[in-house]
Amino acid sequence: MGKKKTTFNISKSDNFSEWYSEILNKAEVTDLRYKVKGFVVIRPWGARIIDKMYKIYESALRCTGHEAAVFPALIPEKNFKKESSHIDGFAPEVFWLDKKQGEDKLALRPTSETAFYEMYNLWIRSYRDLPMKIYQRANVFRNETKATRPLIRSREFHWIEAHDAFATKKDAEAQVQDDINMTDEVMHNIFGVPFLPMKRPQWDKFPGAEYTIGSDSILPDGKIIQQPSTHLISQHFVKAFDVKFVDEKEKEKTPWLTCYGPCMSRILASILSMHGDDNGLILPYTLAPVQVVIIPFYNTKPKEIQEATKKIKADLLNEYIDVKVDDSDKRPGDKFFYWEMKGVPFRIEIGEKELKNKEVSIFIRDTREKINVKIENLVESIKNLGAEYDKRLLSRADKFFSDKIVDCKDKAKIKTALNSKKIARFNFCSSDKEGENCAEFIEKKLQARVMGTRADLNEKASGKCLICGKKANVVIYAGKSY
Amino acid sequence: MGKKKTTFNISKSDNFSEWYSEILNKAEVTDLRYKVKGFVVIRPWGARIIDKMYKIYESALRCTGHEAAVFPALIPEKNFKKESSHIDGFAPEVFWLDKKQGEDKLALRPTSETAFYEMYNLWIRSYRDLPMKIYQRANVFRNETKATRPLIRSREFHWIEAHDAFATKKDAEAQVQDDINMTDEVMHNIFGVPFLPMKRPQWDKFPGAEYTIGSDSILPDGKIIQQPSTHLISQHFVKAFDVKFVDEKEKEKTPWLTCYGPCMSRILASILSMHGDDNGLILPYTLAPVQVVIIPFYNTKPKEIQEATKKIKADLLNEYIDVKVDDSDKRPGDKFFYWEMKGVPFRIEIGEKELKNKEVSIFIRDTREKINVKIENLVESIKNLGAEYDKRLLSRADKFFSDKIVDCKDKAKIKTALNSKKIARFNFCSSDKEGENCAEFIEKKLQARVMGTRADLNEKASGKCLICGKKANVVIYAGKSY
Repeated sequence: MGKKKTTFNISKSDNFSEWYSEILNKAEVTDLRYKVKGFVVIRPWGARIIDKMYKIYESALRCTGHEAAVFPALIPEKNFKKESSHIDGFAPEVFWLDKKQGEDKLALRPTSETAFYEMYNLWIRSYRDLPMKIYQRANVFRNETKATRPLIRSREFHWIEAHDAFATKKDAEAQVQDDINMTDEVMHNIFGVPFLPMKRPQWDKFPGAEYTIGSDSILPDGKIIQQPSTHLISQHFVKAFDVKFVDEKEKEKTPWLTCYGPCMSRILASILSMHGDDNGLILPYTLAPVQVVIIPFYNTKPKEIQEATKKIKADLLNEYIDVKVDDSDKRPGDKFFYWEMKGVPFRIEIGEKELKNKEVSIFIRDTREKINVKIENLVESIKNLGAEYDKRLLSRADKFFSDKIVDCKDKAKIKTALNSKKIARFNFCSSDKEGENCAEFIEKKLQARVMGTRADLNEKASGKCLICGKKANVVIYAGKSY
Repeated sequence: MGKKKTTFNISKSDNFSEWYSEILNKAEVTDLRYKVKGFVVIRPWGARIIDKMYKIYESALRCTGHEAAVFPALIPEKNFKKESSHIDGFAPEVFWLDKKQGEDKLALRPTSETAFYEMYNLWIRSYRDLPMKIYQRANVFRNETKATRPLIRSREFHWIEAHDAFATKKDAEAQVQDDINMTDEVMHNIFGVPFLPMKRPQWDKFPGAEYTIGSDSILPDGKIIQQPSTHLISQHFVKAFDVKFVDEKEKEKTPWLTCYGPCMSRILASILSMHGDDNGLILPYTLAPVQVVIIPFYNTKPKEIQEATKKIKADLLNEYIDVKVDDSDKRPGDKFFYWEMKGVPFRIEIGEKELKNKEVSIFIRDTREKINVKIENLVESIKNLGAEYDKRLLSRADKFFSDKIVDCKDKAKIKTALNSKKIARFNFCSSDKEGENCAEFIEKKLQARVMGTRADLNEKASGKCLICGKKANVVIYAGKSY
C-alpha cells in the first residue's frame, strides 16, 4: 500500500501518554475540559462503546443467574463503620456530604458492599434464599489523591458491582472462579484485552476481604493496569452486618459472600490503548459504534449510486450491523482519515466503477488492506470479516502481552525487565505478611508493584527469594503501574 | 368466576396510600428499609421494569436524532452561580459535598443544565454543529424538604435528561412539541399512563426557563403527579454560559436550548398505581419482567408434562417473550396468588388434561378470565393477547383519567371537585404574574395547585375569573398534589 498520509500520526510506541490523551480528544471519546480534577465528560462516541460493553457484561451476568438491582448512591457513615478494615481502607478516598442537621453523615459510595449487606441482613433468612446473586450498574466515587488519568484513574467511574451470597465457602470459591472466567470470556475473548488473574498478596487485598484476585493487564508503555477484581469477603465483614441464614437442619449459619467489579470506563481505557495505532483508534468490531461506514462517490451516476447506497445500508441494518453513510460535503480523503482515526472497522466505497462490476471496495482498518466484494455477498462478507477482525485483534494483543512477561533469575534482571517496560516473574519469599518488606523494597527501589501470584496456575517456587535471599515460597509477578 | 381468595387484598380505591406502600413491599419492587430518608433500594423486580422502560425511552430518543453521553455527577458551585434564577430555584434542594481544600465547592447534580452548557460552550461553534441533541441516563439528587414517598418523591431518582440546542427559536419550539409527543407515544401509549400537557404559569416554571410544559397525571387518590417536563431555556441562561455559534452569513448568534426530563422511577410509580388492583400489581405486557409464567402440574405423567413445558418455554423465549417456569414445591394456589400479586400478565397451566387436548389454560391477570389455547397456536396467541392486554390497560386508564376532569362554573364547584378527588377546569384571570395572587388563594384556601393552561389545545376563556372576578384570560386546571 505504500506510505499514506494520516490525520492522527502520533507514535503510540514512542509516546503512549501523548497518544492516549490526544486520541481521546480527537476521536471525541471524552472531553477533559470539565475543570474538576478527575471528572471527565464521556462524549457520544465513548458513550456508545460503553453502552455496548454494558450490554455484553450484563447479559453474561444474567446468564450466570445474576439479577440487577439499584442501590442508593449515598451510604450512611454508620454502615461504613461496621467493619473497621473497610472504613480504614477507604477513608482517605471517600467523598463526604455536608452533614445535614439531624441526619447521619453520608458518603458518596466508593463501592457498595455496605449498602448491599445492610439489605442482605434483611433479605437472607434461609438456605432457600441462597445463592443470592445481585448486581448493579453504577457510578462510584473515589477521591483519588494520586494524579488522575482519564478513564484509567478517575474520581468518578462507571462500573458493575456484583455481590453474591452462598451457603458454603466452597460455593463462594466457585463463584470467584466463575468471576475470573467471566473476565476471560468477556474482557479477554470479546473485547480483546489480555490479563493475568493474580491472587493479591495479603497486604494488598480489598479492605474487608479474606482474599482478592485481581486481573492485571498492561498498557503499551509497559505499565500495569488493574482490571476487574473479585473478592472473597471475610467472615468478619459478614458478621459485622449480621448476615445469617438457617440451614436445612434449622441451624443458624453465616453465608459466604463474594464481590466482582468490572469497571467499564477503565476497561475502555485498555481497549483503546491495546488496539489503537499511529492512525488512531482501532475498535473491536463487536464494540464499534459504527461498524461500517459507507462513502458514496456521486461524481458520476449520482442517482444510481445513491440508490445502491440506500439498499446496502438497509441490508446491513437489517442484520443489526451499525452502519453510517457519510455523504457530507467533505473531501473523500478527509472522510477516509476521519473514520480511520475514529476506529471504524470497515469503510465501504462505492462509485461508478464499483457499481458497474456489482461490487464495493472495502477498506479494513487494522490491516489497511482494500478488498473488493460482490454486493450480493456483502452482508455475509461483513459478518465474516468482522469475526476475523476481532480474532486478529485478540491474537495480536495476546502476542503483545505474552512477550511482556520475562523470567528473572536475579535482582539485576528484574530491574532490567522493569526498566524495559516488562512484567518480571521471579521467585519470592512470601505473599503473606512476611513478604511485605521485600514488596516495599520493590516499590521503593524499583518503583514497581508486586502483583501477586497466579490464581489460574499453581506455579512452584524454587531456590531463594531474589530480594531477601530467604527460601522462596511463591513465584511472583511485578510491574510498573500508574 | 365468583369471589376468589387473594393474597394481597387491600382496597386500592379506599386506601390508596396503604395499598401503594404495601404492594411495593409485597411485590418486591422496592425496599424502604435503607434507613436514609428519601433513598430506596430498587429490588430486581422493580429494576427489570425500569430497565425495560429505559430501553424503550432511549430507543425513542435515538430515533429522534439524540445521542447518549455521560456527564459527571458533581457540578462545581461556579457553574450553578452563572445563572441566578437557577441557583436560587435549586439552592434549598442541593446536596453539597464537604469542601476539599483548594477546590471549588461541589454539588451533587439536581439536574445537569449547568454541566451540559459548560461543554456546549466548547462544542458549539458553527451552525453546522446544530442541532445538537444529547441525552444522558443518570441518577440525580434533590434534598427534598417535603415528605418523601417511594418512587414519587425521593431524594435520589433515576431519569433521562435531554439537552438540545438549535439555531432558531422556531426549531427549539418544534422540539418542545416533539418532547410532548414523545411523552404521549411512550408514557401514554406504551406504558398506559394518561396525562395533560400543561403550560406552567410564569410563577411555576423551571428556574432558568422561558417557559415550561409539564405533564400532569393523576394517582388513584386524585392527587396530581407531575411527569416529564420540557423547557424552553431562557436566553439569559444561554448567555450566562456564553454559548454561541456563527451562522451561514458568519454572524454570531445565540442558540436556543430545550431540555426534557422523563424520570423512570416516577413514571414507574404512575404505572404501578394506575393499573394495579386489589389483588396486587397489573403490569403492562410490554414492561412485565415476566410476561408469561408457566405452572406445570406433575401429579400425573410428570415426564410428558416436563417435556411439554420445556418446549413451550423454548418457543416463547425464541420469540423474545420473557417466560418463567414455576416448578417450585409451593402449593398451586400459592403460586397463583404470588404471580398474580406480582402482576404477571399471563399464567399458563399445563397438566394431564391439557396435554391430552394439546392445549394449555391461560389465566389473564387484568380480567381474571381463563381461556384454553391450542399449543400449536400458543406463541401467536400470546403475542395477540399481549397487544390486546396493553390496549385494554390504556383505554381503562384513559377512561379513569377523563372522568376526573370537571368543568367548574363557580368557586364552590371548584371546592367540591377538588374535595371529591377531581381536577377542576375553570376560567381564570391570568397565568402571568398578575394571576399569582389568585393561585395563592387556591393553594392556601383550597390546598390545591394551579397546573396551568393546556399546551395542546387553545382553550378560550370567557367571563370572569372565578377567584378574583376580574376578566378571565385563560382556562386553567387545578388539582391536589403531593
